[in-house]
Amino acid sequence: MSTDGKKSITVGLLRPPSQADPKRKRFRRCRSAPLSEFLPDGILAASEPHTPPPSQSIFDNIHPSFRKVAVYLIFYLAIGTICFYLVADQIKGEKVNAILDSVYFCIVTMTTVGYGDLVPNSPSTKLLACAFVFSGMALVGLTLSKGADYLVEKQEILLVRALHMRQKLGPAEILSELENNKVRYKCFMMMGFIVVLFLVGTVFLATVEGLDFVDALYCVCSTVTTLGYGDKSFSTKAGRVFAIFWILTSTICLAQLLCYVAELNTEKRQKELVEAAEFIIFKLKEMGKINQDDISLLLEEFENLDVDQSGTLSTCDLTLAQSCQT
Amino acid sequence: MSTDGKKSITVGLLRPPSQADPKRKRFRRCRSAPLSEFLPDGILAASEPHTPPPSQSIFDNIHPSFRKVAVYLIFYLAIGTICFYLVADQIKGEKVNAILDSVYFCIVTMTTVGYGDLVPNSPSTKLLACAFVFSGMALVGLTLSKGADYLVEKQEILLVRALHMRQKLGPAEILSELENNKVRYKCFMMMGFIVVLFLVGTVFLATVEGLDFVDALYCVCSTVTTLGYGDKSFSTKAGRVFAIFWILTSTICLAQLLCYVAELNTEKRQKELVEAAEFIIFKLKEMGKINQDDISLLLEEFENLDVDQSGTLSTCDLTLAQSCQT
Repeated sequence: MSTDGKKSITVGLLRPPSQADPKRKRFRRCRSAPLSEFLPDGILAASEPHTPPPSQSIFDNIHPSFRKVAVYLIFYLAIGTICFYLVADQIKGEKVNAILDSVYFCIVTMTTVGYGDLVPNSPSTKLLACAFVFSGMALVGLTLSKGADYLVEKQEILLVRALHMRQKLGPAEILSELENNKVRYKCFMMMGFIVVLFLVGTVFLATVEGLDFVDALYCVCSTVTTLGYGDKSFSTKAGRVFAIFWILTSTICLAQLLCYVAELNTEKRQKELVEAAEFIIFKLKEMGKINQDDISLLLEEFENLDVDQSGTLSTCDLTLAQSCQT
Repeated sequence: MSTDGKKSITVGLLRPPSQADPKRKRFRRCRSAPLSEFLPDGILAASEPHTPPPSQSIFDNIHPSFRKVAVYLIFYLAIGTICFYLVADQIKGEKVNAILDSVYFCIVTMTTVGYGDLVPNSPSTKLLACAFVFSGMALVGLTLSKGADYLVEKQEILLVRALHMRQKLGPAEILSELENNKVRYKCFMMMGFIVVLFLVGTVFLATVEGLDFVDALYCVCSTVTTLGYGDKSFSTKAGRVFAIFWILTSTICLAQLLCYVAELNTEKRQKELVEAAEFIIFKLKEMGKINQDDISLLLEEFENLDVDQSGTLSTCDLTLAQSCQT
């Protein structure tokens, strides 16, 4: 083991720095998003000029971790619907259709809107609803975790990118690259989408459910925020079909917007950390301590030590590297 | 301007590295938390052996950003209560006392529990409720932002600490220090607190509101998760007084628990980034490129450039530093 570690370090040190660049692709992280998803198009286009720019739909920008959450969500909804369908006779309230009501009840419960137009009416259904809403909260926790994870991952990638880009650009240019990212754009896109969802919901409630304008708007607000007083809700068959899609979309979009706002807020601080790393490299170069070849060597070294190609080192890797020195 | 920048760099380079250590305190960040809040007790105790260990209450660990949110929250609740008190005659439902009902309605709306036992009954009150719940969502967004900001700040501090600690410890020791942090402990504490809140809520609803055990538990779950079907809610005077404090505490605690879970989840990745930084310093030392004096110099340099003592550099500082070189 120790010999292997030693060997890979030696190979790393002996390899000329010119070989570092073609290896760049190995830095892409297989276990989550490829690095390219985080790099502004300009950078990739500069290194790979023949690649067409990726399409810029807002859904393409969704992190794979969130896609995983979406799969859980669908799975969770399917199980919930089956459960509530099986105990449909123990749910009281305004009913229109057994399957439709189960899905509707499931969505209204999972999103914590909880109108109360359909409520569990037996001890077992009440406990089922409790279990369902708590596992829903766990799903929210998972989504939050993925969101936080994404912020930290983004920072890591910004730092690695800062190291790579030193080869071509000065710190000022890197900073302007960082400023070009798409968080603000995503925020505005999502805001626009929420406004459309608001209008669609209000118009639907006013025409199909026959509410007056203020009541329709009130029901929309009460739903999107998951308040769900329940004095105004979806009571027709068409209304419930619409509600299933509309409630899920609008609550998720509002939650996503809040995540984007949080991300926008951390950007400044993330930039500061990249600047600090930049500054240290800049000073080490100015002091004549290191040059770009050293940085390339280090990055390569880092890749060699990283046996599982995860883009990061494990504690084990580091201990190995230390034991080789002493 | 340029001359000043040059001067401060020169002063930094000329200052002997032994002077770097007493300056350590300047790294504490005045604009947010002092650095000491993030350092495990062991580290501070090692450098300042006569300082008694800080008390370890869970509330002492709350980040100052969150305290700011708490102030907004109280302000927001006060305004909401006054508004709803003024339009109390336009709110229909089970009423017990004008002031109490206003506070209760305010809490039930703000937390998005929305039982529906009290609902706005005029166009103006409905719009007021919409405005109130949306500004509440903005407050949630602010809290999320602070949470995300805290994660990034924590990472920055871990990196700066890794640089400082190199003077005494090897990477393995630093890693075990990082593993000793309190997120897991905070998680368990909060879980325990939530269990207590659950028990208190269930016992209260069963005794004061006269619900049977399953209904009491069902109402507790429906409230804590902000589901709020509203078929079971607080309808007595004592119940509403209790509800005001209990709903606010339990929903905030559950949200806080979700944040801790998210933090716990990002810890692994944060550690990886610190390891990478550690590794680069380790290799630069191994290659004989830099020594601890260089690192001390860099940290000092960093402080000198940082005119506003914020602990980070601005873009302006960097541009200045570059223009001095070229």
